[in-house]
Amino acid sequence: MTETDATPRKTIAFVAYPGLTLLDIAGPLQTLAALPRFNLPFEVVTVAAQKDTPMGTDTPLGITANRSFAEVPAPDVLIVPGGEEPTLAALADKELVDYIRTAGATAQVIASVCTGALLLGEAGLLDGRRATTHWIYRERLPVFGATPVAERWVEDGPVITAAGVAAGIDMALKLVERLVSTEFSRLTQLFIEYDPQPPQGPLDWDAIDIPSYDPIADGQIRTALEGHPELMAKLLDAKQA
Amino acid sequence: MTETDATPRKTIAFVAYPGLTLLDIAGPLQTLAALPRFNLPFEVVTVAAQKDTPMGTDTPLGITANRSFAEVPAPDVLIVPGGEEPTLAALADKELVDYIRTAGATAQVIASVCTGALLLGEAGLLDGRRATTHWIYRERLPVFGATPVAERWVEDGPVITAAGVAAGIDMALKLVERLVSTEFSRLTQLFIEYDPQPPQGPLDWDAIDIPSYDPIADGQIRTALEGHPELMAKLLDAKQA
Repeated sequence: MTETDATPRKTIAFVAYPGLTLLDIAGPLQTLAALPRFNLPFEVVTVAAQKDTPMGTDTPLGITANRSFAEVPAPDVLIVPGGEEPTLAALADKELVDYIRTAGATAQVIASVCTGALLLGEAGLLDGRRATTHWIYRERLPVFGATPVAERWVEDGPVITAAGVAAGIDMALKLVERLVSTEFSRLTQLFIEYDPQPPQGPLDWDAIDIPSYDPIADGQIRTALEGHPELMAKLLDAKQA
Repeated sequence: MTETDATPRKTIAFVAYPGLTLLDIAGPLQTLAALPRFNLPFEVVTVAAQKDTPMGTDTPLGITANRSFAEVPAPDVLIVPGGEEPTLAALADKELVDYIRTAGATAQVIASVCTGALLLGEAGLLDGRRATTHWIYRERLPVFGATPVAERWVEDGPVITAAGVAAGIDMALKLVERLVSTEFSRLTQLFIEYDPQPPQGPLDWDAIDIPSYDPIADGQIRTALEGHPELMAKLLDAKQA
């Protein structure tokens, strides 16, 4: 591959915040981090309110971002991971949601993994769009003006939303196809050896009574948004929207 | 589920070191971190030479472990992630390899993801065992006395090795089945929504000329082990072993 210094590089920014679900960010980050390593004209960064400052995740691994929001005001690609209570609490984090809103306003691609879609929604980026999220939260999307879709990932204009957690890897390979080529997406898949063999086979969605899990989501919303009654009410009512 | 304070908890320790491949640790960690959250008698920790101290990965995300090697001398389950040059360089990291050797001596389960298998090998834990690793490094396993196997994961006594990067998720679900139950493995799979749909479909191994990638491995070995000629020679000669 040839590239001169004059080739403009696109910036791919992964948003990090305390308590996120580790695999939501790690799956697509591993996939897309391959681009600059193959001398393709991309810079991949992780952005947070404060760079180089450890944050917790929903696992015993802490994380640090290598850029602050202020340093990456207008990435070309914006990717927002999700999580459970901490992500719901983050809906009330003005600095984070403002960053997603302003960065999303100019980005060519706006992506989410799992409940990262709720953050896109709160930032006003899902209005009138088809979108998906973790299956437990899917029917909460209409409150943001979005139409929920039960697919592994959903592309609608500049917005691409992935289903829960591990779906971020599939979505990222789709993004590589879009940003580079089908051939390079295949090569990336080979290097990260993404040739899944779930020991119990694929999920059997027909056997899963999704509405029966609503109390789990309701409980997480009540816990996470105790101090934010309007946001709490909005998400609790979303099922009926 | 019922559990009393008297229930002995098993410790599952993920080894972290500078420069590892993020998804190698994040995939199985996300999978196994579900156990204590469902009140099952497990403690999941991340261990490194120094806890709470940021380390780089092969992506723009830094990581921190929540325990030091000294704090977790004898975990019940030991899981070692891999990577590229930094993992090869880590073969010469006496503190790390000594930890893997001593912790592995008493662990009931010793697991690796990707080239983490080389670290198990250097610690003497693969001698006489069937094992796998990232496909680019698979034929280097005999130098550690192991028999390479081209499977998604390989179980041999207490040792379970996974293929490259993303294979750690499949292996971890298998481990959940072993440590808890098939039913709980299915539930974990549902919550992390691991229902893979690679956009380009499964990998077509028949179309991949694996030996043609040997120069990539050779180059990484030469770069990473420049100051350790014996280790370098051992791994370069492994193909002919």
